[in-house]
Amino acid sequence: MSNVKRVYTFGNGKAEGKADMKNLLGGKGANLAEMNLVGIPVPAGFTITTDVCTEYNKLGKDAVVALLKSEVEAAMIETEKIMNAKFGAKGDAFPLLVSVRSGARASMPGMMNTILNLGMNDDTVKIVAEKSKNEKFAYDSYRRFIQMYGDVVMEVVAEEGQHCPFEQVLDRVKKTKGYASDTDFTVADLKGIVEDFKAVVRKKAGKDFPTNPWDQLWGAICAVFDSWNTERAILYRKMEKIPSEWGTAVNVQAMVYGNMGSNSATGVCFSRDAATGEDIFNGEYLIDAQGEDVVSGVRTPQEITIEGSKRWAERAGISENERVSKFPSLQEAMPKVYADLDAVQTKLENHYHDMQDMEFTIQDGKLWMLQTRNGKRTGAAMVRMAVEMVEQGLIDEKTAILRQEPNKLDELLHPVFEKSAKAGAKILSKGLPASPGAATGKVVFTASDAEEWAARGEKVILVRRETSPEDLKGMYAAEGILTERGGMTSHAAVVARGMGKCCISSAAGISVSHTSLTINGRVIKEGEYISLDGSTGIVYDGKVATITPKLDGDFGKLMVIADKHTKMYVRTNADTPHDAKLAREFGAKGIGLCRTEHMFFEGDRIWAIREMILADDVAGRKKALAKLLPIQREDFYGILEAMDGFGVTIRLLDPPLHEFTPNDAPSQKEMAQKLGVTEALVKAKVDSLHEFNPMLGHRGCRLGNTYPEITEMQARAIIEAACDLKKKGMNPKPEIMVPLIGTVEEYVMQEQIIRETAEKVFAEKGVKVDYLVGTMIEIPRAALTADKIAKHAEFFSFGTNDLTQMTFGYSRDDAGKFLPIYIEKGILKNDPFQILDQEGVGQLVEMATTKGRSANPKLKVGICGEHGGEPSSVGFCGKVGMDYVSCSPFRVPIARLAAAQSALRK
Amino acid sequence: MSNVKRVYTFGNGKAEGKADMKNLLGGKGANLAEMNLVGIPVPAGFTITTDVCTEYNKLGKDAVVALLKSEVEAAMIETEKIMNAKFGAKGDAFPLLVSVRSGARASMPGMMNTILNLGMNDDTVKIVAEKSKNEKFAYDSYRRFIQMYGDVVMEVVAEEGQHCPFEQVLDRVKKTKGYASDTDFTVADLKGIVEDFKAVVRKKAGKDFPTNPWDQLWGAICAVFDSWNTERAILYRKMEKIPSEWGTAVNVQAMVYGNMGSNSATGVCFSRDAATGEDIFNGEYLIDAQGEDVVSGVRTPQEITIEGSKRWAERAGISENERVSKFPSLQEAMPKVYADLDAVQTKLENHYHDMQDMEFTIQDGKLWMLQTRNGKRTGAAMVRMAVEMVEQGLIDEKTAILRQEPNKLDELLHPVFEKSAKAGAKILSKGLPASPGAATGKVVFTASDAEEWAARGEKVILVRRETSPEDLKGMYAAEGILTERGGMTSHAAVVARGMGKCCISSAAGISVSHTSLTINGRVIKEGEYISLDGSTGIVYDGKVATITPKLDGDFGKLMVIADKHTKMYVRTNADTPHDAKLAREFGAKGIGLCRTEHMFFEGDRIWAIREMILADDVAGRKKALAKLLPIQREDFYGILEAMDGFGVTIRLLDPPLHEFTPNDAPSQKEMAQKLGVTEALVKAKVDSLHEFNPMLGHRGCRLGNTYPEITEMQARAIIEAACDLKKKGMNPKPEIMVPLIGTVEEYVMQEQIIRETAEKVFAEKGVKVDYLVGTMIEIPRAALTADKIAKHAEFFSFGTNDLTQMTFGYSRDDAGKFLPIYIEKGILKNDPFQILDQEGVGQLVEMATTKGRSANPKLKVGICGEHGGEPSSVGFCGKVGMDYVSCSPFRVPIARLAAAQSALRK
Repeated sequence: MSNVKRVYTFGNGKAEGKADMKNLLGGKGANLAEMNLVGIPVPAGFTITTDVCTEYNKLGKDAVVALLKSEVEAAMIETEKIMNAKFGAKGDAFPLLVSVRSGARASMPGMMNTILNLGMNDDTVKIVAEKSKNEKFAYDSYRRFIQMYGDVVMEVVAEEGQHCPFEQVLDRVKKTKGYASDTDFTVADLKGIVEDFKAVVRKKAGKDFPTNPWDQLWGAICAVFDSWNTERAILYRKMEKIPSEWGTAVNVQAMVYGNMGSNSATGVCFSRDAATGEDIFNGEYLIDAQGEDVVSGVRTPQEITIEGSKRWAERAGISENERVSKFPSLQEAMPKVYADLDAVQTKLENHYHDMQDMEFTIQDGKLWMLQTRNGKRTGAAMVRMAVEMVEQGLIDEKTAILRQEPNKLDELLHPVFEKSAKAGAKILSKGLPASPGAATGKVVFTASDAEEWAARGEKVILVRRETSPEDLKGMYAAEGILTERGGMTSHAAVVARGMGKCCISSAAGISVSHTSLTINGRVIKEGEYISLDGSTGIVYDGKVATITPKLDGDFGKLMVIADKHTKMYVRTNADTPHDAKLAREFGAKGIGLCRTEHMFFEGDRIWAIREMILADDVAGRKKALAKLLPIQREDFYGILEAMDGFGVTIRLLDPPLHEFTPNDAPSQKEMAQKLGVTEALVKAKVDSLHEFNPMLGHRGCRLGNTYPEITEMQARAIIEAACDLKKKGMNPKPEIMVPLIGTVEEYVMQEQIIRETAEKVFAEKGVKVDYLVGTMIEIPRAALTADKIAKHAEFFSFGTNDLTQMTFGYSRDDAGKFLPIYIEKGILKNDPFQILDQEGVGQLVEMATTKGRSANPKLKVGICGEHGGEPSSVGFCGKVGMDYVSCSPFRVPIARLAAAQSALRK
Repeated sequence: MSNVKRVYTFGNGKAEGKADMKNLLGGKGANLAEMNLVGIPVPAGFTITTDVCTEYNKLGKDAVVALLKSEVEAAMIETEKIMNAKFGAKGDAFPLLVSVRSGARASMPGMMNTILNLGMNDDTVKIVAEKSKNEKFAYDSYRRFIQMYGDVVMEVVAEEGQHCPFEQVLDRVKKTKGYASDTDFTVADLKGIVEDFKAVVRKKAGKDFPTNPWDQLWGAICAVFDSWNTERAILYRKMEKIPSEWGTAVNVQAMVYGNMGSNSATGVCFSRDAATGEDIFNGEYLIDAQGEDVVSGVRTPQEITIEGSKRWAERAGISENERVSKFPSLQEAMPKVYADLDAVQTKLENHYHDMQDMEFTIQDGKLWMLQTRNGKRTGAAMVRMAVEMVEQGLIDEKTAILRQEPNKLDELLHPVFEKSAKAGAKILSKGLPASPGAATGKVVFTASDAEEWAARGEKVILVRRETSPEDLKGMYAAEGILTERGGMTSHAAVVARGMGKCCISSAAGISVSHTSLTINGRVIKEGEYISLDGSTGIVYDGKVATITPKLDGDFGKLMVIADKHTKMYVRTNADTPHDAKLAREFGAKGIGLCRTEHMFFEGDRIWAIREMILADDVAGRKKALAKLLPIQREDFYGILEAMDGFGVTIRLLDPPLHEFTPNDAPSQKEMAQKLGVTEALVKAKVDSLHEFNPMLGHRGCRLGNTYPEITEMQARAIIEAACDLKKKGMNPKPEIMVPLIGTVEEYVMQEQIIRETAEKVFAEKGVKVDYLVGTMIEIPRAALTADKIAKHAEFFSFGTNDLTQMTFGYSRDDAGKFLPIYIEKGILKNDPFQILDQEGVGQLVEMATTKGRSANPKLKVGICGEHGGEPSSVGFCGKVGMDYVSCSPFRVPIARLAAAQSALRK
């Protein structure tokens, strides 16, 4: 054992570890070592390896301290030398205070938090006060250290039903002195608090607070190891399948201070602009300050560069003179340190090949880097940086693509509020961000009002308790939709996303009646303005101006790169020529799902379908269907024309018939009058269509197989439209999709009707078109028997919305009652309706693809559930080897990117 | 080709074929050959092989006739010799008339029907008339032949919207002569009809009816081959996956006649009694008669044996003198022929090792056997015969078990109507035979009335539009249940079967209100008697006496044999000690499913559960649950006591909470008053519990994981009950089952609560009991991830009701709208809720079993869905290797038998 190296030092451009020693040193330790090796000035320190954690669990505290003692002491001496300070109060030297942090291979909740300022005691605090010329800072640091150490290491925690005992002390002092906040404490107060804190420790922990820094240090190190085996950490590892033998490392690092006078400072900086992506060094700093001062807003932070400083002054209306005297840039105030920092940021970006977000402290004229990480960025910045870095030769195309967060492209694809307009607007409520984008308009409460008002040029927001297919036209006419009920996958949310229309659902404190909307007490009447931010879920009072962001050149360049590397193509889910055209502009190569039922709600069509529903026999149904035929043909003509040359998958009628009938008495009366039957008959029909579990009821191909004349009419409409286009010299490619197949027999019966109808139409029209017949795979049984189905079907399209419902046994309309709790408790990692469940549902998808292709090697395979626009799910589809994914028009670029990533990862 | 043998003769105790040549000769041909080889007198004839059918399809009619000609002619000469008759009219010889039949390997709908009397023409008819001394018979046979041949061979069929042209002729004659039926025709009429029929053929077929017997024969042979390729036959083969190359054979066989005078006769006989199983030769015959005379009821058939004849006379009140003179037995009337027949029946039973159902004809003193087959029998006879045949050494135990039709045992396990009482009762309607058995009682319309009336000793029939869990106590109190709505798997049907209670659902023409039942116009008020036959679905007016059949000795013996050969044991689904005891008497070894929710409806418990539902927080719920704890403990105590020594699987709360709350305003008001809250609060709670698809909603372990206190209470009640029993020296074996698991995390959280609770109870009670924790596999995702779940679960129990719902995407409450049509169209072979779908659902069952056992070899696996009592499904469970099946008490013997069969087939 004695030959084993347990402690790795770093500092002053040297390190015993390096980046690829993550397993031994943990992520943090390896990174601290690496920064030193690159030549970045980092406060010195050392890392105790993860192996020691395992020894600790086997041998116990005392044995491990004994094993570590000489190495830790030697490492501390190294650190003292580099930092020119002494651990513990030793003569006149500045006390070396250290931080102690855990550091596993991957960051892990439940592990010990940082302990700062370790080394503080009644002696060192005085020296710190003197050297920093800031007694308040010294004593505040001291009392914070006691509190933190007492809590984490000595387990002085709140008893049940009580406040934390340290907070009780603070509250008492504030109350006695009439202080509003902690910042009001005087030095005297703080000195008293330190003593009170020590008393608290003595009472609660049954022993004195350790004054010896070495005792403090060993206590903290052991506490880190102990935190590896807390209940929370064990549960987390169990869930994440992290082996308990991995252990955690311990990082001990010197503290540095930016508040030690006018030659000290602290700040944050970025190697490129995180908002726009512009390749410009930028950041903020404050002289004689701590990190929290920069962000707290008490003092105005200054810019790092002269250029940034000038821009800032201009925006803030501050003259150049005032700027230079009061708010000089770091470049002006400390040119030498600035030059060091600029060199560091360049070095770090070049080293990590990505934009860096850095924290630094200047202690007495010396620059120390406290942290560097890849910087967060907006969607626009993400795209611009990647494209420019490729052009600059900093990264290759593969890296550029893999670095994108596809979901962030969403920001670039929807209208947004003007920043200033939004800032001034009054927030009424916050709901679920059900469909992104911004919308402003007058409130209406019915779909028909939405249509009417929109027809006369008004911009409206449709407000409903919840929406149903009958509201479709109104939703289409509206700028945005707000619902009282429903989750991220409610009807309103799903349809709105499909339409690329902004939607907020389940907003807090709102209540919708037929004539008014009440939001947290404020009553909003028809015609009043509200504004919705579907990306955040915020509802604003009144009108808020919106802008439509342009898809700039970098975005286009990125898409070209993506398509170069992709293996899957992307289709769109679209029910109208308008959506088809839009999606084509976004790069869609065909339609993966055209739902025919939405078309039935337009204009007078609903009456024909209702007439069909009321019919008692085949003849009656055929009569009603004959009225729908020319209308449907026209629909399909438009869509096939808009997607000319690309495949268009048209799904046959899917929803249960009761979605087309009215439930309330007045509407039933209207239906009776319109169709010339008794109200009782209409009511009886509607009642007979009632289902206990409509999701599992009479729908999909079960309709086509019980009423074959519906399939016949739809097949005829599709093929006639295609023939008409073909005659005009176009190249229509219809792909007819049978929904909800569970047995091959169901498919074969539908296919037969379709092919027979097609042959008839070809004979009538004297022209033939290529077409495919295939099926949705959305019933578990279809996936299980995919080999049998694929012997007949030419394509599979995974309907993962329904497949998820049935594989989990979750109704997405009802899952709101337990899904959020499941996610909170960790039973589910994600909402499986948003992110494809690869373990369960994915198993069926993979099984069906494999079985299907084994029976029919030419089988075309795609996905048309909403997962087709969700990046990780698209990645899975790529892994499975699908030919395409299909998603709503506004998600097409996201899917293209995710598809390219999937191909590159393979 | 010329060396190939195409025709196989049989007759006079010789045959060129034999039983194992089924592929070449078809089932019928091989059997005719075999009977000859055994020495049974069968009318002679010959079989044209199935290979010829294939040649026919390749080479066509003329070529095949040429190939066959010499062999068929030679075979016909053989037949003529044996039958002492001539094909066609040849001198004074009796004309040889033949039948022509198709005969594939397995009988196949869509294939050609039999053609009888082939050989008839204007010449032969005269000879037949003369020889048979029955001119009417001769001409009637002739006209029937023309009609049959014209229809099948010459395709003289009805035109659309018209009657068959032959029937038109018959109708015309009857109308002209004022006849009521075909039997009124005189010889003169028949002669005229023959001529008219020939004219019809000439007109419709465009050619004369063939008078040459050889032309007739070739026409018939080719018609059989043609019928192999009719649309219906091809579709059937496609569905049944029968290769088209198999082909059909053609059987040509001599006709014999029992109506050729007092030395001729015809009859049917059985080697044992088909009703009771008694080993006694029996049957009926008539002298000078055709087969149809025996069954038509025009003449009184006579018994075969003296003993049978005497029994019959006694029953009919006929004196011995009258019997002997007017109705002598065959044994008395034709002692020599009787002796031959008796020898034949003994030989046949010994040859086929089973009770034979035989048809015979005596032509001019010579016995001919026309058919023998294994006889149909009642359930009681089936059991008795098998047991006695084993005792007689006729069959071995394996054969005895495999020969049982398990479903027929049902007849032995439920009350039935007295035969005579049933015969006299008036039938009101016929519905679905939802749960077998017979019941008679006074009509009540509410569950509470059923309870009240039953409590004061009345026998009642509960009549409801449909039932819900709230009706449970009333269903239990009633003798039987009649519902207006719902299918074989409706709530009423499922629960009734579980209770072993008679139930009829969806009866035709019935309509139920709160105060009356209208059946096809007849209004039945509360308190009037009706009677239900749940085995047939027939509803009778008034009171019909019932009897409870005894499980006699043979039944017990059969079960002993079954258990000797079985590999799976059988448990029962039972929620009460009463059911548990009953099932134990039927041989159940444990409980596979004890549903805890039914218990919540008893007495005042519903108020505690409603209080829990109304509670806003954990504390409120715990308070309400504390009231349920002692009651549940008592329930479990009773059930564990009744099943002492055997495993008892108790499922935690499963149904959605809205099943416990009232939907109508008065009941909501009552609930509000009882629980001291506002009506509005109750209504709001009920509304908030509403679900769009309750089957896929907040139920099963989703309740236990969102309200862990429910699981805690139930686990405590179970373990406390078990500890109390253990202290009394008993041996309780609780197995706690978590329902509706979809992810292993759901299971782990529930298991943790259960185990922690158990440890607490053990500490409190100072005693430990063995218990298991496991899960239902009823969600497809659970089956897909069974390996992960089995690492934690100690047992799996397949809930194939829900698994079927989700794998097919069928709600069993709604599937009535398309399932019957699907079965009619052949899309589904069976209702998958009745017979386990082995192809799809079975794939998940097998996958889960394999994955589960691979992760946990000690995993106990069973089934508790209703399929556990369905024989073919039990067979599948055996094949998969389950440890047990579980079913309702009354199906336990059936499952035991099916389990033994499955083991023997393996």
